[in-house]
This record gives sequence, C-alpha cells and structure tokens, in this order.
Amino acid sequence: MASSICVVGSVALDSIETEDGVAENVLGGSSAYFATAASFFAPVNLVGVVGRDFPDAERDFLASRGINLEGLQTVDGDTFRWRGRYHEDMNVRDTLELALNVFADFKPELPASYKKSELVFLGNIQPTLQMEVLDQFSSPEISGADTIDHWITQERDAFVSMLGRIDMLSINDAEAALLSGKSNVVASAREILAMGPNNLLMKRGEYGVLHFASDDVFAVPAFPLEFVKDPTGAGDCFAGGLFGSLAESGELTRRSLRRAIVHGSVVASFAVEAFSLNRLKALTRDEIDERYRQFMALTDFHS
Amino acid sequence: MASSICVVGSVALDSIETEDGVAENVLGGSSAYFATAASFFAPVNLVGVVGRDFPDAERDFLASRGINLEGLQTVDGDTFRWRGRYHEDMNVRDTLELALNVFADFKPELPASYKKSELVFLGNIQPTLQMEVLDQFSSPEISGADTIDHWITQERDAFVSMLGRIDMLSINDAEAALLSGKSNVVASAREILAMGPNNLLMKRGEYGVLHFASDDVFAVPAFPLEFVKDPTGAGDCFAGGLFGSLAESGELTRRSLRRAIVHGSVVASFAVEAFSLNRLKALTRDEIDERYRQFMALTDFHS
Repeated sequence: MASSICVVGSVALDSIETEDGVAENVLGGSSAYFATAASFFAPVNLVGVVGRDFPDAERDFLASRGINLEGLQTVDGDTFRWRGRYHEDMNVRDTLELALNVFADFKPELPASYKKSELVFLGNIQPTLQMEVLDQFSSPEISGADTIDHWITQERDAFVSMLGRIDMLSINDAEAALLSGKSNVVASAREILAMGPNNLLMKRGEYGVLHFASDDVFAVPAFPLEFVKDPTGAGDCFAGGLFGSLAESGELTRRSLRRAIVHGSVVASFAVEAFSLNRLKALTRDEIDERYRQFMALTDFHS
Repeated sequence: MASSICVVGSVALDSIETEDGVAENVLGGSSAYFATAASFFAPVNLVGVVGRDFPDAERDFLASRGINLEGLQTVDGDTFRWRGRYHEDMNVRDTLELALNVFADFKPELPASYKKSELVFLGNIQPTLQMEVLDQFSSPEISGADTIDHWITQERDAFVSMLGRIDMLSINDAEAALLSGKSNVVASAREILAMGPNNLLMKRGEYGVLHFASDDVFAVPAFPLEFVKDPTGAGDCFAGGLFGSLAESGELTRRSLRRAIVHGSVVASFAVEAFSLNRLKALTRDEIDERYRQFMALTDFHS
C-alpha cells in the first residue's frame, strides 16, 4: 500500500489576469495545488483554513480526488484571496491585491489520523508555523518544505532553523541565490545543503529542475509547451507530484527520487495548460503516464 | 573512416575581461573554436583569414590538433580583433573594441582538397558569403550554420535564403525569437523549421540546448559548473563537438544526432572552464568520454 502524505499550506481564491484571459475567484493556494497533484499517486491529508465563503463545489472537487479534508478548518470570515497579473513574459507577475483574511490567524492543527502520515510537506507558510506542524509528527519518513523570498529575508533565522529539520527543500533559483548569497547554482546548492536538507530541488521555471544531493546531481528539463495559460501553482504541483510519486513507490532511493522528480515535472506541465486547477480537474493517470514516456523520449540519448 | 568537416568563419585575437581576470590577444574566432572542438572526433578543414601578426604558436596549436590549415589565408594587415567584458552575470557582455582588419575583405576560397568534405559548417559570417561557400560544394551530406543577431536584422533576406539551403541551424534562444517573432520556444522552432532547415539547435546558455526536428524534440541540460571562467566560443565549441561527433559516427540518425548534441555540450562545458581555447589545448579524448558518462548520470531516470 502507498504511504500517505500530509500537506500544510494555503487554500485560496485567486483572481488571475494574463495576456489572453482572466479567471475570477478560482481555486488556488499552495496546499490545494500540492494536494491535487499528489492525489494522482497516493492518499493525501490536507491541513489548511478557509472562510465561510469557500465554495462547496471546490470542496467537493478536493474530496472527489480522495483528499482527506478533516484538517481543513472552516472559520468565520473570508478565504485568503490573491489577485495577480502575468506579463507577456510569464516569468514576471505583479500582485494586484492580497487579502490574508482567515489565513492571517491560521494555526495548523493536525487531526489525530494525520499523525501517521509517512511523508510531510510544509507548503509556503511562516517558518515558525512550519516547525510547529513538524513538531506534531513523531518521526516522518520524509519531510519537505517550500517557501517564498519573503520568509528568507524577513524571518531568516526561523527559516534556517526549519531547514535543519527537513529532508528536502524545494525553491526556485532566485530564492536559492537569496538564501545562499551565491548566483552560481552549484555553489548555491552546496551552501544550502550545508544548512541541513539532504536534497535540494532547484526550480528553474521553463528551464526545468536541478536536484542536488551531497553526492549527486540530476537535471530534468521542463516539458516544452507551446501554450502556457497560467503558471500559478506550477511549483506546488511539482512538489505534489514528486511527493505523491515517492509515497506511491514507498521508498526513497536514487531511482525512486529521480522518477518522482519527473512525475512532479509531468504534473506541473499539465497544470499550466489551463487556469487554476482546471487542467488537473480533467487529468487522468493514463495521461500522466503517457507524458512521463514523452519525458523519456525528450531526454534519452542512451539507447 | 570518419567523414571530414569543412568549417568557414572567423579566426581572431580576442582580449577578454571578466570579474576575476583578463586575457590579452588570445586565440578566438568562430572557426578556431569550432575546428578545435571538432578535431577531437574527426578531420577538419578550416577556411579563414589572418594577418601577418597572427602568432606562429597559435597556428602551430591548430596544426597540432590535425586541423588542415591549407584554407587559412595569411594576408597583409592585422588579424581580426575583439575586446569584450563580461558582467558578473556572464550571460551579459559588452563589446569594448572591434577591428575587423583583414576579415573585412574576407573572400572564402576553398582548396580543391576541401571540396570532398562530407560535412560543411558555415560559422558566423555574412549570409551571402555563407552561400558562396556552400556553392563550392557539389552536394555535402550535412550542412549547418550559425549566425548572430546582426545578420538576422540587417540582412534578413539573404539569411532566410541561406536557411533554405542547410540541414541544421544552431542559434541561441534570443536569436531564434528575433528570427521567428515568437518568444515561446516551441512556436519559434516551428516557424524556423518552416524556413528550411530540418534541424534547429536552440542554445540556452547555462540551461542547455533544445533540438527540434519536424517530428522530434530533444532536451539536454548544460553541465552544472561551479566556475565559469570565460564563456566566449561556447556556442562554436558546441557546434564543433556536434559536427565532429556526427562525422565520427559517419551517419545521421536520431541516435547519432542525440549523441552528437551531448558531445557538443561536453566540449562546450570544458571550453568555458578557462580563457580562450586554453582548456581545450590540454583536453584529452578520455576526459571527453568521462564527462559524456557524467552527462548520462546527470540526466538518466530510466534505469
């Protein structure tokens, strides 16, 4: 049986503007993206908070993916909202509105049933909260975290403490440079690995991902897509697919981790094809497996 | 026996400034880089021009690599000189001085013995000259070309005519966007393939290379290097290693081309480790083969 995963992070209602469209009040947030991506591979327990305005349809969708919502608190007030606009170069976006709402007072609480999750992922929240969640597990087999530049600069000490306690950190190259003070990716990775995690996933957007361990480097390109509709949540889907695949395999080996990194890349490549989680709402495991084979064809020069 | 390659392009004396050093009047130029890279795999015939000031030591080096210099004209005047300064971000450089000198009146002339070269590579020169060189071959098995943004914008018609006559184009992503008018790499590649070449090598610097054919895409990352001393000529070394490997294999198949793209990436990864051609001056085939295996380890998730 596959291991199960616990993820903590935001659940949001996003409004997204791009060059060719707008989506209003659509499902978003790091734990919603992560959990949906992971749900194609393994059981997922979600920890988060929403307000009374959170649509039943979105809750039903998450439940339909088999995601355990016992840890999704519903409290008085409005759900976390974010409005952003992507430039023509989708690597650049502006935040137009940000209302934390009920997320401002979020205190993650784990239902007893979650505490036996073998894998734990700490989505982008305050590092002290990430550690409080981790404290509620006796000894997870694999722990990982994501973050944003804000915590690296504003709560660096707490963030570095958290790093000392996890197995994997998933961040983008700009965040890695900010954390390490090094612009070269190899030098940057060495600095970060020395802070604690055994594995660093360095996300490079349309260029793919580099994985660094103390004695190993793995590179996987992003899937070349002609149309990218909405890059929101791509990094969370990458981490979700990765953790899902690891949980499904039930082991952490060089081989299972590399396969998981490709599975993460596959799910992320689908996620950006439509607004919000719309592409993942229609996605099947067969489509994932087919694109995994396309990744093999894309990168193979051995045979 | 391996096929032979004919390359035409510049031979220069470069002066290069980086954050941690300066090199004055060192060997450079597209055909010098290309020919040296290719010489690890197959016989190379070089076409170019230098002035009376061209150092015997550099001529002797090229000859020591087995490069046929019968087509390297030596004429009255000075050799092409370029001085550039790289920023801390080595993707950005400024040209400080440029003196075409004898290269201004360069008329490529092929010795009779060159005309049986099975592979032809047209380095970055005026597109009309590239076509004049191509006219001197009866029917090369594989023809390729490189260029710079200047020819795409200033001599677009001639450049597009040239494109209609070659098998492979090797350019960077910014040049591809300029040529196609598309910023998305997949859309850009489709436009360019429609202009004639069966194969497009899109160079993305530290992110690696994408190869596009009408029915195939291949992605290879750049080798993650902690120290990049001098990126000058990396693209020429990539093309040289690629053409060298193709010539060595003696066939153009999906497999031989993918192996050749990795060989090109390998040689380019060595070239940037020192100023000018200094690293390639000391390079051995064993080192190339060892790094090729490291590329396999870097990218393999199949086994």
